[in-house]
Amino acid sequence: MLNAYTPGAGHLSPADEALARRRAKALGPAYRLFYETPVHLVRGAGVHLYAPDGTAYLDCYNNVASVGHCHPRVVEALNRQAATLATHTRYLHDGILDCAERLLALFPAEISHVMFTCTGSEANDLALRIARAATGGTGVIVTDNAYHGVTLATAEMSMSIGPAVAPGPTVFPIPAPSAENYPQGIAAGFAQAVTEACDRMAAQGVRPALLIVDTIFSSDGVHPDPAGFLAPAAAAIRARGGLFLADEVQPGFGRTGSRFWGFQRHGLIPDMVSMGKPMGNGYPLAGLALKPETIAEFGRKARYFNTFGGNAVAAAVGLAVLDVIRDEALQDNAATVGAAFMQGLKSLAQRHESLGETRGAGLFIGQTILTDGRPDPARTARLVNALRENRILISSTGPKGDSLKIRPPLPFSLANVDQVLTTLDRILKTL
Amino acid sequence: MLNAYTPGAGHLSPADEALARRRAKALGPAYRLFYETPVHLVRGAGVHLYAPDGTAYLDCYNNVASVGHCHPRVVEALNRQAATLATHTRYLHDGILDCAERLLALFPAEISHVMFTCTGSEANDLALRIARAATGGTGVIVTDNAYHGVTLATAEMSMSIGPAVAPGPTVFPIPAPSAENYPQGIAAGFAQAVTEACDRMAAQGVRPALLIVDTIFSSDGVHPDPAGFLAPAAAAIRARGGLFLADEVQPGFGRTGSRFWGFQRHGLIPDMVSMGKPMGNGYPLAGLALKPETIAEFGRKARYFNTFGGNAVAAAVGLAVLDVIRDEALQDNAATVGAAFMQGLKSLAQRHESLGETRGAGLFIGQTILTDGRPDPARTARLVNALRENRILISSTGPKGDSLKIRPPLPFSLANVDQVLTTLDRILKTL
Repeated sequence: MLNAYTPGAGHLSPADEALARRRAKALGPAYRLFYETPVHLVRGAGVHLYAPDGTAYLDCYNNVASVGHCHPRVVEALNRQAATLATHTRYLHDGILDCAERLLALFPAEISHVMFTCTGSEANDLALRIARAATGGTGVIVTDNAYHGVTLATAEMSMSIGPAVAPGPTVFPIPAPSAENYPQGIAAGFAQAVTEACDRMAAQGVRPALLIVDTIFSSDGVHPDPAGFLAPAAAAIRARGGLFLADEVQPGFGRTGSRFWGFQRHGLIPDMVSMGKPMGNGYPLAGLALKPETIAEFGRKARYFNTFGGNAVAAAVGLAVLDVIRDEALQDNAATVGAAFMQGLKSLAQRHESLGETRGAGLFIGQTILTDGRPDPARTARLVNALRENRILISSTGPKGDSLKIRPPLPFSLANVDQVLTTLDRILKTL
Repeated sequence: MLNAYTPGAGHLSPADEALARRRAKALGPAYRLFYETPVHLVRGAGVHLYAPDGTAYLDCYNNVASVGHCHPRVVEALNRQAATLATHTRYLHDGILDCAERLLALFPAEISHVMFTCTGSEANDLALRIARAATGGTGVIVTDNAYHGVTLATAEMSMSIGPAVAPGPTVFPIPAPSAENYPQGIAAGFAQAVTEACDRMAAQGVRPALLIVDTIFSSDGVHPDPAGFLAPAAAAIRARGGLFLADEVQPGFGRTGSRFWGFQRHGLIPDMVSMGKPMGNGYPLAGLALKPETIAEFGRKARYFNTFGGNAVAAAVGLAVLDVIRDEALQDNAATVGAAFMQGLKSLAQRHESLGETRGAGLFIGQTILTDGRPDPARTARLVNALRENRILISSTGPKGDSLKIRPPLPFSLANVDQVLTTLDRILKTL
């Protein structure tokens, strides 16, 4: 894993060292901490996270607490509903419908159903079940360094987990939509790759079910441009009888600035849209929006019940998050502040050769780090850790980890951007 | 699905009819409501749920709100932590360790790691991934009407979903542990069935990975006795190189009365234990406890990260639930009140020929409903709906739906039992 603590290394206080040992003992060997020296947190508010001694970290990484850590309106909605009723979707309750209808109003009219899960993994896993029913196929196309979840089925669709998890036998990876991978042009090249993957399926007797992409291609290194390039790929999978799933777990809920959903930058209407991380601002809430014809066959044959998914508390929280995004104009803020952030990085790159390409949309930014003009994962890792020592939380991304992944809570301000740029400027002189 | 509303039927108020239509429109065709006439709820407290007009329903069904609906101590812990910090397991935080260590203290010493997910489905799905890594096999043994989750992998292990979801190609069902299925003796017969399933796997070139059972066999109709019968089955799967997973999503957290976990009634130590529903009293919290040797190979090759799983709020809620179970002696209450409930049902059966076998442990009870001495799903359904009309919420279970499933919140009192028995006595005279 990129940016993981090695037990025994780092400069932990005795108290933190003891916590890390308790973790290894209780949680076992599959858990990882961030950073050479892990961060110990006790409090969060807005765009800041706080250590036990009061040290404030500026959060440039956590897209879950998307409307700000511990946002008072979201916490209040959570409190009120949790004290009133917390039960499930097999009884009539207004809350889930208020939340569902508000969500659906944010989609094109063709997408008119929404189903609730607890995690993005569950949403993508459900989408695969629905796609299999709708198409009769099993083949899934993903990008080379995709991440779509931790269930057995979605982990097999997540190349970024690494060689420990083999791609599923019906999973067909294609190169991520970068200029480097598609010198002939990203839109045509990526669509061509989809068609070729369908050909490989056909050669193995597999029928296409699904093309699934994170519409900001986060784990592939952040690839938003040129806007519109996804539309031919969606057409290509449909031409072969498969469905197009926009995974909005990362880019959704206003983060890309110009639009509420990442797919909207590409001028297409997905068959299904999965949602997660920011949907409940930390409460386990996720979902799947879809066209009625997509779910028709699944709905004829099967039911769906998720014990906690769409419970009354989840619905109240989901609604509060939508209220805050609207009332605080957070999508606009993501556009404005994200543009300033990218412009600032590009200006900084004039003075620092180690800053390579800046890619992004709104407050989702990838920044390649170079040495002698070539992407340098080791330098990226040093930078991520140096920022952490300078109280800025960030991480890396891309197949080799050669890009900064910048993805702060949406109330991020221009002053916050200045702090990051000033700190980067200082660190890069010595790194 | 057992006990599902048919749209257009029932006796809904115009307001509820409108809600049901909004549901169908927004949520699509895969969602179901309980009862011929669905129940509309707005509030919950203790063992009661309330309709908009104030009508109180006695809850005999919901094992999620296990320490009581909207328990003040759990709500307070949720509120406090949600207002303080809600972030994930890649930073150091005390809360997850406090929760993990308190949980592990409830297990035999051999089970010394716990991993956190959001749902029981995710816990069972993760268990399958871990079992595959540990054993090198893929074969899974489940009971004929098992339910283990809604992810693609766990749905394929859940025969109770019905013919719409085919068993996975490496899933091998065996008959549930009833006297009817194993007239030669349940313990020996069930173990023999495991061995024979391994033989069927071998004939198909499949290696065993896992025997997974809900230790109260809820969806199979509730089969707790004779205590101890599971031990030979666990030995049988281990003899073939597979692991034994106790699915405690339903029976865990004190519900079976005499022990905290259902498997403890059987005098065995599982390789893994999955937990869910009652773990967060409605907050999406689930997990997997395991022996270190079970996770060793998975931990060497892979990492596990669940964005919301084990977050600071989940940990605070999980700890509060354990506090309440202990401080209110809810496990003892389940034993005492559950025994009285079963005794009351057996006494009632003296006067009502339609009451067949009563099976259960603590506050998890299955009650077969008969007509002319034979199990009668239609009569069971009528009874479930008649109880609902009499303000008692309950459902049915078993492969044919011929048993009442009685599974109330654990603070259920002897007075609550009297109310159920009195109402049953009255209804059964006319049904």
